[in-house]
Formats: sequence, structure tokens, C-alpha cells
Amino acid sequence: MRDLNSIGRIGIGDHGGVTRLVFSIKELRSRQVLIHLMRQAGLKIHIDAIGNIFGRLEGHSAKAPAVLSGSHLDTVIHGGKYDGPVGVIGALEAVRTISENRVPIQSPLEVVCFVGEESSRFGFSTLGSSLVAGEVHAKDLANAVDAQGTKLADVLASLGIARKNLRSLARDPESLKGYLELHIEQGPILEAIGKRIGLVTSIAAPTRFKVIFTGQADHSGTTPMEMRKDALVAAARLIEFVEKTCRRFSAMAKGRVVGTVGAVKVEPGVINAVPGKTELLVDIRAITAQAKDRVAREVRAEAQRIAHRRGIAVEILTIREEDPVPLNHRLLQLTKKICAEKNIVYEIMPSGAGHDAMQMAKITPAAMIFIPSQRGISHNPLEWTDADDIGLGAQILMETMVRVANEKF
Amino acid sequence: MRDLNSIGRIGIGDHGGVTRLVFSIKELRSRQVLIHLMRQAGLKIHIDAIGNIFGRLEGHSAKAPAVLSGSHLDTVIHGGKYDGPVGVIGALEAVRTISENRVPIQSPLEVVCFVGEESSRFGFSTLGSSLVAGEVHAKDLANAVDAQGTKLADVLASLGIARKNLRSLARDPESLKGYLELHIEQGPILEAIGKRIGLVTSIAAPTRFKVIFTGQADHSGTTPMEMRKDALVAAARLIEFVEKTCRRFSAMAKGRVVGTVGAVKVEPGVINAVPGKTELLVDIRAITAQAKDRVAREVRAEAQRIAHRRGIAVEILTIREEDPVPLNHRLLQLTKKICAEKNIVYEIMPSGAGHDAMQMAKITPAAMIFIPSQRGISHNPLEWTDADDIGLGAQILMETMVRVANEKF
Repeated sequence: MRDLNSIGRIGIGDHGGVTRLVFSIKELRSRQVLIHLMRQAGLKIHIDAIGNIFGRLEGHSAKAPAVLSGSHLDTVIHGGKYDGPVGVIGALEAVRTISENRVPIQSPLEVVCFVGEESSRFGFSTLGSSLVAGEVHAKDLANAVDAQGTKLADVLASLGIARKNLRSLARDPESLKGYLELHIEQGPILEAIGKRIGLVTSIAAPTRFKVIFTGQADHSGTTPMEMRKDALVAAARLIEFVEKTCRRFSAMAKGRVVGTVGAVKVEPGVINAVPGKTELLVDIRAITAQAKDRVAREVRAEAQRIAHRRGIAVEILTIREEDPVPLNHRLLQLTKKICAEKNIVYEIMPSGAGHDAMQMAKITPAAMIFIPSQRGISHNPLEWTDADDIGLGAQILMETMVRVANEKF
Repeated sequence: MRDLNSIGRIGIGDHGGVTRLVFSIKELRSRQVLIHLMRQAGLKIHIDAIGNIFGRLEGHSAKAPAVLSGSHLDTVIHGGKYDGPVGVIGALEAVRTISENRVPIQSPLEVVCFVGEESSRFGFSTLGSSLVAGEVHAKDLANAVDAQGTKLADVLASLGIARKNLRSLARDPESLKGYLELHIEQGPILEAIGKRIGLVTSIAAPTRFKVIFTGQADHSGTTPMEMRKDALVAAARLIEFVEKTCRRFSAMAKGRVVGTVGAVKVEPGVINAVPGKTELLVDIRAITAQAKDRVAREVRAEAQRIAHRRGIAVEILTIREEDPVPLNHRLLQLTKKICAEKNIVYEIMPSGAGHDAMQMAKITPAAMIFIPSQRGISHNPLEWTDADDIGLGAQILMETMVRVANEKF
């Protein structure tokens, strides 16, 4: 908790909000603090070309693949102090405890801090872990620009990071035995059901699209109801449909679908005009690609039906299509067994939000351990997780690291 | 048409949009042109303390009350050239024709141009006619400010208009025999049914309110459907309810209700957050206070029911409550008779928009004659009415003026 709080004070502002955007002075300082802590813990430090930090504790078998665990230290704008750091400091604490207590380990253990998990600055999430997983190429980053117009490419150049070196970031899967990530839930489920540990089956992925209904803007006083082409009433029907359909698929067995219309833009958007145009932003996530695609298909079809019935136009623009990422089943069984041995009541659950584990799962067996978020609040200064829960999560993480390092896996 | 086009060129801008905000240089110039035209027509001109212009043609009986007809010359921002000027120039043409042809008239005829019918500059509509009807007091105007922060009071002062003189504006009802206004429909009905003349029964009035639903903003990925307090889905239900309910009351016999949700504001309003707060602006109009109040009551009650059912909060803030204004029945009968005599197919209809006639009806028998608006478009550079329809409207207006001036009424 002391180390977690040292990190949490970096970038703290109004109302306790924490802002450490990737490659900002504050975020760089948090990395320096971590390097210092890793060094104190006696870990061997390696920093890769983009700035991902690896702190290694050697095991008995020097050539064995490493058990990797960590998360990120960057935050959203005005966020909290747990999203990310809990996983980095949790892994550090686990490795430190193993080291201090001379717990025998076969495989080496590595604590990792990935660069830029949050998309808040460059609109690009899981930057560091994507590069390690070999999922991003330098050219994909060429167009990334922040709100001030600063190019990611220029930021990298100013930090002395050569684009050509980014190629070498992809880590050889042979060098890894697995990846474990401790993280706050960022949702309300664990608190609501009174459980302190969540074991993650898969990471949901979003399908995002924009729906634009175009009717006819008219005078709200002189246009009779039956002569209107109101784009907002059409949109209202679709907003309700998204909720209704996702509720049908909300059970785990049905893919745990969640769907949200988060933003609405109405034109002309004044009290005395019938809306001529309405834009909706739709976000649909699920733990299976099948469920997500089915709901997305139904929503798109309903948008067409509504427009057709009302004699107006509709356009649907895809913003993003990603596939849900299943985590490793054997690692999930192992964490279940560890919890059972310790009489800890856990919940098997998906992750609704994206994480570095999503990238790492592509090159090595990956698992995630969730701990409760008070009131489900995250990306907000009110983000809170009890110290006891953080401790328990780190303990399960440590146990898992030792077992993965020592058992045939 | 020549005079109408001279007025229409004043304040013309991009894409043919006309901007003559009340008391702007352009609007003042349009009044100067009108004064010039009235003088050419041999009318006796009187300009009252706020700037309403009256051009009078004496009748045989000098002491008889006058038949007043006109409209306004001010426009909205980027409006059209027919809304207002058609009624002023139409009345001028009618009186000019009567004068040139020495048509005998008992009562005097007056052409009027009211100041500031549009609310676009100071948020205050039918300014000049309200003062003439004795419906507004100088103190009501004290707080009116335009978008540049200029106070209406200062504008009046700069034009040398003393506030104390405004008291004297109210016109003695004894001096008036009636008020007639020719105006474009600003709606799609006449064009849709293929009629060239609308005879107005009453002017609808709006009830306007803001509905604020407050739920809980949550992460759109991590919050299961059944744990959400989505303020936008609640709002969507209400948007549909407004349409459904108004359709039930849309027949003339049922009060010709129209209801519109014209604006929506969502917070936080981003693709990855469940909406925590949604504000709607609702506008409900009808030709009877009873129908309007009933629908408004149903909408308010439904907002409460939706919020209750979803366990969220709702607040309803009244913006405006006005009563519909019935126009004079005997004048309506007269205009019907005139149309019938001339074999002109007319439509009996309400006015969905407000007009100076709404104020004048409070002190004298008032009638309105509508002519078609192409595609129902108004307050827009695309506003268009065929010259033939304007001519026909002015002819009916002239006929009505003569009959009112000469008949016992």
C-alpha cells in the first residue's frame, strides 16, 4: 500500500483525480519510481525500446521461460489510483515476498509495467503490450495525434525512441510461460454479490458503430404529426431496442452482452424544430464473438426497419469491430484451485473492459484476477478498492506465480 | 412583387438568406423603404413610440374605426423573404389598389408594420403588437438582452425611444374595426392538399418544459444490463410517448395537438459510458387550451412513471405556458363567403406558429389568411411562395378589407 500510494500521488490534482497520460512528465516520473522500487527489490531491470519495464527475479532454471505479471501505470484524464498500478505493484509485492522469503522457484519471475494501456492521449489502447505481442506495427502508429496536435511519432522521437527499434519489441513466446494480471474490476458485480475475488474467463470486445437517421427538419408548430419525418423519434425506438435486445443476451450462457447508446446528436437541436437528423453512438460488447455479432446484426437490421417504416434515411458507419479474447482455461482452473484451497469465495466472470492481458493472451497463456471496485466506479477520482482486497488479490497472484513457475504447465 | 423584392434584398446574405434582426441597421432600412412606399401611395403616416408604422387611407366617415392590416418586416437569422413582408406589402398593395381605383370605403384603412415580431434577437416575440394591444409593460422589457449582451433598453435609448413613452402605445380598441393579416403558412398543409388559401380559426400556443432524467453514469463495458440506471433509455421512452400521445389528439376535432422533443443533452455523452443524465426539451401546441393541457399532463405523468419504474430521478421544469388564441368567428365567415363567391377552394385551419394577429385579437376582431409555403419550409433561405399565391392572398385580403370597412360589423 505504501508503494501504491507513492505512485498514486504522482499526477494527483483537483478532488484527488490522478492524471498520468502516457509519455507525460508525470507518467515518466511514475516509471522512475517503479524502477527505483524494482532495484530496491533486487530485480534485474530491462527496459525495451518503447519503455515497457521488466524487473526479473531469476529462478533455479536459468533457461526456463519466465512467468510474467504486471499491468500499467498510465491513467485516463482525472482518473483514479487503482486502475493499473494495483497490478504492477501487486506483482512487485508478490515477487518481493517470494524473494524475501526465499520461496524456491524454477522459472524466473518478471514484473512488467506496460506503456500506454489507456487510449486517453493518442486514442490507441494497450500500446506497450500490443507491441510486445507483435500485434502492432510502427506504421500503425504513424497517424496517432493527441488533443494538442502532438504526434505520437514526434513524442517517441523526442524521447530518443527510434521507430525502427519498435520492430524488435515483439517478445519471443518461447521466453514466456504465462502472463498473470491483477486488476480492479471497474464494474459493480463483485461488490453486489459480496465476493472479493473474480477469476476472468475472457475479455469482452466492442463492436462500435454510428447510426445516422436523416428525416426532415420542420417547424414544430406548423407541421402536423402525420406529416413529420422526425429523426429523433426513430432514434428513440433504436435506443430502446438496444436495451431490450441486450437484456435478452445478458446471461453468461448467452454471451453476457452489454449494449449502450452513449451519445446522441440532434440537428437542428432547438425546441421549436422537428429534428431532421439524429446521430447515435452504439457500443456492443460480449464475451463471445457470436453473441456480439448477433446482437450487432439485430440492432443494425432494426435501424433499417425503423427508417423504412418511417420513410426516412439511415446510414450506419462502423467505428470498430474487435473479437473477444478468451483467457487460458488451465490457468483459470489453477486459480480456482488456489482459491478453493484457501476457502476464498470467487466469481467466474468476464471482463467488460479491455486490458494488457488481452494482448498478452495472443502469445502466452494468460489469466486475470479481479478485486472489487467500490460502487463499480472507475476512470474517476472516486475509484476505490479496499486495502484488504488488494492484499488478498496480491496473495492469490503470488500463489499463482509460484505454482506456474514450479509446476509443469 | 417589385416592392416585396425591394424589401427582400435588404439584409440578404449567403445562399439568399435574409437577416433583419429587430432594430438592426438592415431592419431600420426596410422600415425606411416601407415609409417611402406608403408616402408614394398617398397614405398618411404615423409612427408610434416603439417604431410601429401605420399608413392610413381615410374613408368617407372620418370618425369611423379603422380596418387595420399588416404584419412585420423583421426576420430571424438567415431567414426567408416572405415571412412577414407578404402581410405588410400585401396590405399596402390592397390599400393602394383601393385608392387607385377609387373604391368607395366608409371606414379608414390602415396598413401596419409591427416592430419585432420574431424573438430571434431579444427572445421576445410580437414586441410591437403586444405593446399596441396593451399586453406588455415597459418593465417586462427591462431584462431583455441579445446574444451580444446588448440590452433592449439600451437599444431603445440609443434610438431616442423613452421608456415612459411606451405606456402610451396601447391603442384604443374603439379606434379599430378589425385586424386582418395575410401570412405564409410556414407549414406543409396547403401544398399537400393542393389548396391556395387557408382561413385561420385560431393560433396555437405552446407549453414548453424541460425534462431531466438522472440515473447513474457507468462504464459501458463492465456494467451488466440489469444493474444500469440509464437516463437515455428512460428519455427514449418519453420521446416515443410524446409522439404517440400527440397522434391520438392530432385531428382538428381533438384540438390538433402537435408535440416535439427538439433537443436532447446526454451526460457524459461518450461512447463508452452509460448515460447518467439526459435532458429533453419538449414543446406541445394545440388550438385548444384543454387539449394542450391534457397532453402536457399525460407527458409529465409518463415521465414520472418511467423514472419510477427504472428507479431513477426525474425533474420537470416549465419553460413557458401560453393559451391558444381563437380568431374572430364572424370575420372567418366573411372570408369564407368571399372565397366561395370567387370559387376559391380554401382550407379552414389553425395556425401552428405565433403571429401579430395573436396580440391584436385581444383588442379587436382579428382574422388571418394563409397562402402556401413550398415544402412547408420557413425561417430558412429556401422559404418560397409562388407570386400567384401571394397575388391571390392579397386579393382576398383587399376584398375583406373593403367589406369590413363598408359593412356593419
